Amino acid sequence: MKVSELGEFGLIELFAQIVSRSRGEALLVDIGDDAAAWRTEAPIQLATCDALIEDVHFTLSTTTWRELGWKSLAVNLSDIAAMGGLPKYALVSLGLPGDTEVEGVAQLYEGMAELARLFGVAIAGGDVVAAPLLVLSLAVLGEAQGDILTRGAASPGDQVAVTGFLGASAAGLLMLRKGLQLDGEATSSLRQAHLKPYPRVAEGQILARHGVKAAIDLSDGLIADLGKVCQASGVGANLRAESIPVHPLVSANFEKDCLSLALSGGEDYELLFTATTEVIDEVNKLLPCPVTVIGEIVEQEPGRVRLFDERGREIQLGRGGWEHFAPRREDEPPGGG
Amino acid sequence: MKVSELGEFGLIELFAQIVSRSRGEALLVDIGDDAAAWRTEAPIQLATCDALIEDVHFTLSTTTWRELGWKSLAVNLSDIAAMGGLPKYALVSLGLPGDTEVEGVAQLYEGMAELARLFGVAIAGGDVVAAPLLVLSLAVLGEAQGDILTRGAASPGDQVAVTGFLGASAAGLLMLRKGLQLDGEATSSLRQAHLKPYPRVAEGQILARHGVKAAIDLSDGLIADLGKVCQASGVGANLRAESIPVHPLVSANFEKDCLSLALSGGEDYELLFTATTEVIDEVNKLLPCPVTVIGEIVEQEPGRVRLFDERGREIQLGRGGWEHFAPRREDEPPGGG
Repeated sequence: MKVSELGEFGLIELFAQIVSRSRGEALLVDIGDDAAAWRTEAPIQLATCDALIEDVHFTLSTTTWRELGWKSLAVNLSDIAAMGGLPKYALVSLGLPGDTEVEGVAQLYEGMAELARLFGVAIAGGDVVAAPLLVLSLAVLGEAQGDILTRGAASPGDQVAVTGFLGASAAGLLMLRKGLQLDGEATSSLRQAHLKPYPRVAEGQILARHGVKAAIDLSDGLIADLGKVCQASGVGANLRAESIPVHPLVSANFEKDCLSLALSGGEDYELLFTATTEVIDEVNKLLPCPVTVIGEIVEQEPGRVRLFDERGREIQLGRGGWEHFAPRREDEPPGGG
Repeated sequence: MKVSELGEFGLIELFAQIVSRSRGEALLVDIGDDAAAWRTEAPIQLATCDALIEDVHFTLSTTTWRELGWKSLAVNLSDIAAMGGLPKYALVSLGLPGDTEVEGVAQLYEGMAELARLFGVAIAGGDVVAAPLLVLSLAVLGEAQGDILTRGAASPGDQVAVTGFLGASAAGLLMLRKGLQLDGEATSSLRQAHLKPYPRVAEGQILARHGVKAAIDLSDGLIADLGKVCQASGVGANLRAESIPVHPLVSANFEKDCLSLALSGGEDYELLFTATTEVIDEVNKLLPCPVTVIGEIVEQEPGRVRLFDERGREIQLGRGGWEHFAPRREDEPPGGG
């Protein structure tokens, strides 16, 4: 059945059925009223939004509807994680061509609902409209009890650290785009890294509660995102190339480009944070994932990120990340916001 | 200059400059971080979102960028008003073709910022991405102290009332689409009704604080929206045609179609509410706008709305409002969500 046959109100009812399993106690009003309403006792509210446009941010030729649903929510949960907050509610605005299959859109919602349940997030409302191409716009609301993480809190002397490994998402995109045949483990892990990123929500909360002040999630690429932290904090950063935690499957399968994929591929949705050595040692004991110190914050031209090899020679950086409206190179992945 | 020349980050900086005048004290983090963050003491949080797609919801051939900015925010403030809440923060997701003029997008933000200042709303964040056509997706967050208005709280015996006058927005759209030449006052008032609706925020709060429980804002048309209240409440409604407050400029300029424009034209963004006669008398004294009782809630097939003439004969209703994905008639206005 096409969405034009089911109609707007039929669709909304279908969505409400799929997501009703994720409704929590504090939620007073969800899908089907003028606005969602919920009770809160948290002193700080967080909100983020992200739009995904067909053939700009994704293509259904390499992404399943279900993966698209997961990822569209995951990138927003990651933004809340990067503030040290707990994501609670999501609103979903959907623009759909009339000849879209209802089954596809139902799978999209199933993918969102699956991730939402894992994180205790309720899909609390939204909007569905006709559009000439698929447009997905999500807003996610979260809460924080006290300290939050911002981009503007890095200080000279701070160490720069990242969670997890880098480059796997961009490698996954490259594999999908070029139809590369890798072995079974690489194929499934790299696809998952690109299409089903797992937001570092627990990790962000640990950072905020244990003295970290500055963080960002890696969506546009390490160099570009660290540049934003530096710009917002009025500082620079020096990185050691040999410390960058390139994902082992990326090193193994993309030997020549692996550092470049890790530095500027984007969409890893790992957390980058800066703090004193003492604070990093402390959070490292608590974090359930690998943490790697990759460089330090320095006083230099605000926003400038420099990379050095193991002999201390500077490595020249090309354009460092994804920017919308910039001309795209052939091999370059589309990026998230 | 085109947006592709200014680039994503230049645009974000421009937007931040335009909206910085609307930033309030409780706002801790706004445009330029992973998420917006603010302090709140309100026990209830509200959230709504709406997507507007070029050539589905608006066309720049009859709408200025500035009007588009105003309206895209106004329809979301209206949703918060319909819950009896106070809108506080807005997030703006923007999809733009690379050859869009920066000046146009700046005007769009100016239009939003103008309305935001009037209502003490801070534009706290957002996202800008490349898209093949203009896509505007807003989320608005609001607060309520206690009682909220919902669609599901209408009871048999309640009177049905609306604020203001109806039909002017749809008449304005008809005028713009057909290039009708009306007199100066009608031209400017009907254009304004369609493109710069004024959300009933103060009115919604008065309703919630003085005993009204059920309300909706009129976006899809009186019959359709009242139908949603009835459906959600498990009741029906009977309306008196002669009581419908048709806008005087609509009666004067669209004699034949004026009742139909008022009943199903949509996008008036007035509030429809139901309550006992005593409660309506009470709020009527407090509301700063006209209020008209147009019928009553009855026990009948849930969701059914019937219309009667002054001699008690039933008037047959056609398709009652705007639905996305339904085939559009020639004269029919595009509707909001």
